[in-house]
Amino acid sequence: MKEGFVGIYVCGPTVYGDPHLGHAKSYISFDVVVRYFRYLGYRVRYVQNITDVGHLTDDADDGEDKMAKQSRIEQLEPMELAEKYTYRYFRDMDRLNVLRPDISPRATGHIPEQIAMIKTLLSKGHAYEIGGNVYFDVTSLPDYGKLSGRKLDEAESGSRVATSDEKRHPADFALWKKADSSHIMQWDSPWGNGFPGWHIECSAMATKYLGKTIDIHGGGLENQFPHHECEIAQCEGTYDEPFVRYWMHNNMVTLNGQKMGKSLGNAISLEQFFTGDHKLLNRPWSPEVIRFFLLQSHYRSTTDFSEEALTSAESGYRNLVEILDLLHLVAQNGTTSFNGNRKGDATAEGKKSKKNDVDEVNSYATGKQDSSGAPFDLQTLKDGLHECMNDDFNSAKAIGFLFEKLRPLKQPLQNGKIPSNIGELSDFVTQFCRDVLAIWSLGKTSDAQDEVPFNEVMQLLLELREQARKNRDWNTADQIRDRLKEIGVTVEDGAGSSTYKLS
Amino acid sequence: MKEGFVGIYVCGPTVYGDPHLGHAKSYISFDVVVRYFRYLGYRVRYVQNITDVGHLTDDADDGEDKMAKQSRIEQLEPMELAEKYTYRYFRDMDRLNVLRPDISPRATGHIPEQIAMIKTLLSKGHAYEIGGNVYFDVTSLPDYGKLSGRKLDEAESGSRVATSDEKRHPADFALWKKADSSHIMQWDSPWGNGFPGWHIECSAMATKYLGKTIDIHGGGLENQFPHHECEIAQCEGTYDEPFVRYWMHNNMVTLNGQKMGKSLGNAISLEQFFTGDHKLLNRPWSPEVIRFFLLQSHYRSTTDFSEEALTSAESGYRNLVEILDLLHLVAQNGTTSFNGNRKGDATAEGKKSKKNDVDEVNSYATGKQDSSGAPFDLQTLKDGLHECMNDDFNSAKAIGFLFEKLRPLKQPLQNGKIPSNIGELSDFVTQFCRDVLAIWSLGKTSDAQDEVPFNEVMQLLLELREQARKNRDWNTADQIRDRLKEIGVTVEDGAGSSTYKLS
Repeated sequence: MKEGFVGIYVCGPTVYGDPHLGHAKSYISFDVVVRYFRYLGYRVRYVQNITDVGHLTDDADDGEDKMAKQSRIEQLEPMELAEKYTYRYFRDMDRLNVLRPDISPRATGHIPEQIAMIKTLLSKGHAYEIGGNVYFDVTSLPDYGKLSGRKLDEAESGSRVATSDEKRHPADFALWKKADSSHIMQWDSPWGNGFPGWHIECSAMATKYLGKTIDIHGGGLENQFPHHECEIAQCEGTYDEPFVRYWMHNNMVTLNGQKMGKSLGNAISLEQFFTGDHKLLNRPWSPEVIRFFLLQSHYRSTTDFSEEALTSAESGYRNLVEILDLLHLVAQNGTTSFNGNRKGDATAEGKKSKKNDVDEVNSYATGKQDSSGAPFDLQTLKDGLHECMNDDFNSAKAIGFLFEKLRPLKQPLQNGKIPSNIGELSDFVTQFCRDVLAIWSLGKTSDAQDEVPFNEVMQLLLELREQARKNRDWNTADQIRDRLKEIGVTVEDGAGSSTYKLS
Repeated sequence: MKEGFVGIYVCGPTVYGDPHLGHAKSYISFDVVVRYFRYLGYRVRYVQNITDVGHLTDDADDGEDKMAKQSRIEQLEPMELAEKYTYRYFRDMDRLNVLRPDISPRATGHIPEQIAMIKTLLSKGHAYEIGGNVYFDVTSLPDYGKLSGRKLDEAESGSRVATSDEKRHPADFALWKKADSSHIMQWDSPWGNGFPGWHIECSAMATKYLGKTIDIHGGGLENQFPHHECEIAQCEGTYDEPFVRYWMHNNMVTLNGQKMGKSLGNAISLEQFFTGDHKLLNRPWSPEVIRFFLLQSHYRSTTDFSEEALTSAESGYRNLVEILDLLHLVAQNGTTSFNGNRKGDATAEGKKSKKNDVDEVNSYATGKQDSSGAPFDLQTLKDGLHECMNDDFNSAKAIGFLFEKLRPLKQPLQNGKIPSNIGELSDFVTQFCRDVLAIWSLGKTSDAQDEVPFNEVMQLLLELREQARKNRDWNTADQIRDRLKEIGVTVEDGAGSSTYKLS
């Protein structure tokens, strides 16, 4: 590990569809890892790839290229498809307050690097070519399977997939695949026209941008085998050096205990969460609540999704934000002369929230204030939060600890009892919640768009409509539905209750 | 030209610095071209590249790679630098309402395609290799110079740059450059390690995504020679077919008659315009005004920048938006029952503008309305605008014509004199100003975007309460007021109408 530097590679999305809650869990988890290292003073280079070729519909080197298939469905060039879904991926990650990676390399943008690696593997006897296809020879490495703990015998006997006649061993995997003339994405290579296998892109790009041995490699647990196992084989076969110091795998999001995933047909896209437009959702959910909800479970644990769980997360989120806002406002008012502005972050604020701050701060200012109170035990708070994060980046524990320590402050603060070190306390909490967990950003959440009680007002409207229907006042009931539709809110009547979604 | 399809390639930015006003002029100009074709019903594929290698500080194949140089200054990997400035480029273009290209290919992501093209040029005798460098032989094409009108003799005698000893003719240009081991970006090639010349990337990517002959190729006038001249030579040398049907070159932005450019030291970045943080600026300027300002001159003309010119553009912009808003609101009010809302675009609206709309529409609603007035001459408006745009996409003329035709409507509309075809008129004007010129989007320009149509929903609630009161249904009226209070919304009853505020 280079002193003071952390190199992180995380497997990015295959850009053939909208990102869903499972993606959010993965990329929010690693976002917090990156943020925490930066908070500790490390220089981090965060590389997260975009897969736009080679990812087949079947993990075992069979099936169709996911990009090519979806391109046909949407009648787009594969690169138009990649552009579209890369845009939507980052748009949704931005909304979730996920930092952009420092380098976001595309698989199709690194064909020469992949070919070079395959050539080395061939020359070192770790790969073999048959009729334009190149396969990795897993028996050429003594420790293939070390990450997932699978043994080659198991792989052989347990393989569900019909083994390609060409492969010497069923666990061998494709490095390069021959393309017939109809294949929409193909490149020239020493083995004829073809395209790279899915695993080689990550090996080529990770080592190009982070060196032969990288500090941290992350990804979803479903990638541990075969994808990450193959990455190790490729890199260690090429460079004869350990590929990764620390592997981190986030667990999945489940729905009634079942994995949520696009191919399983039960995935809810992030856009659908933000608009509420999905049959499993009764209302829209804000990106802030989604982020908070996901960080409330540890990245290695599964997150079981339900709207009840989201409701509970939303309530917890609001409670926490209330305390954070209060702390910040009192600190500003107590330590600086009032100026209706928040130090160092003026441009990030909405006008309306400033107006609200002014009102709130004024109301505190008129109350009795006592900032000569006992100091808050800041060291214990810091140590505790660091301990949570040092325990495998346990954001869930950190959030719990934050609540536990800050909740008792609310009443005294409201009564004007202010700890003597309120400034320091506020600065630290701001830094931790804004820069590390990124669940709060100095009033951004109390901004117009987030703070308006839209859902509550909508529930009242739906209730009034329900009353009108009971009273057989069809005019009013229709008026409400029709007017909402004009506004861009669609009401859907179910058995006994109605839901709405934003169009 | 494929029936109903337009392929457009525009030279994109070299991502080693922040985009400035010159970039805005170029990409807004071509944005309007793309939008106008789509408005006319064409399917457009818009390709705009990202240059992240090969663009040297000196046009004549000398000097340092701009990316490598800036990477050293910022102490970033070239790909980190590319990521950073690509992000900032699109961020600023998004603000300017510039549509994303359908494909945004990177030069470093198309090394194999560039090498393949160079191999073809070598095999056809259009290029020669000397010691790891490959040059295009301009004398091998009979019509080199046809775009810029330069003759090879002139190029030879007029060349200011010391000619490389390797070049057979001073106008020959590099297709591939040998890299010594210190060069930070390099790839393996049939001619040894090196990197592509600047011109070859556009030829390789344009033809890959748009075919051998493309409909429109755009870029800044400064790229006409040598860049586009070289592109033609490369493509026609490779494919023996005409490369481009229509060339479009936008002119530059000047400051006191001098070209504005990064290398000239007088460039103002777009970010600086939006924040006002530049010594030549007295205040921030909104993206809407910048866009309007630039579209007020034809793309082939120079735009001379000054704050006086921006002030005048801002005033014109406001006048136009005022008429457009008015037209739209009256149309909505005249054709549907009043609802304080704008059809079909609720989510894009700002709260303040919505509040203002309500006030405005209320004031109109109280006035006399006469929608049986003479019809507005819509055909003349349409024909005139189409004529302007068909005249080499003359947005400046189109804006002038729009003013001329719409201005006389203001007074009558304010007096409640409404043309009988107000709905059609409003629909057309909305489409033209929002989808083609993209200078107005139903109130979006008046304020920050809202995610939820809170104000509209509240207006509906207040209206329902008003109805209940008229019907002496005091229970419902009180229920609404009390429930809102619980939610945090205070209703205040005034003379004849109610307002609300958030507590």
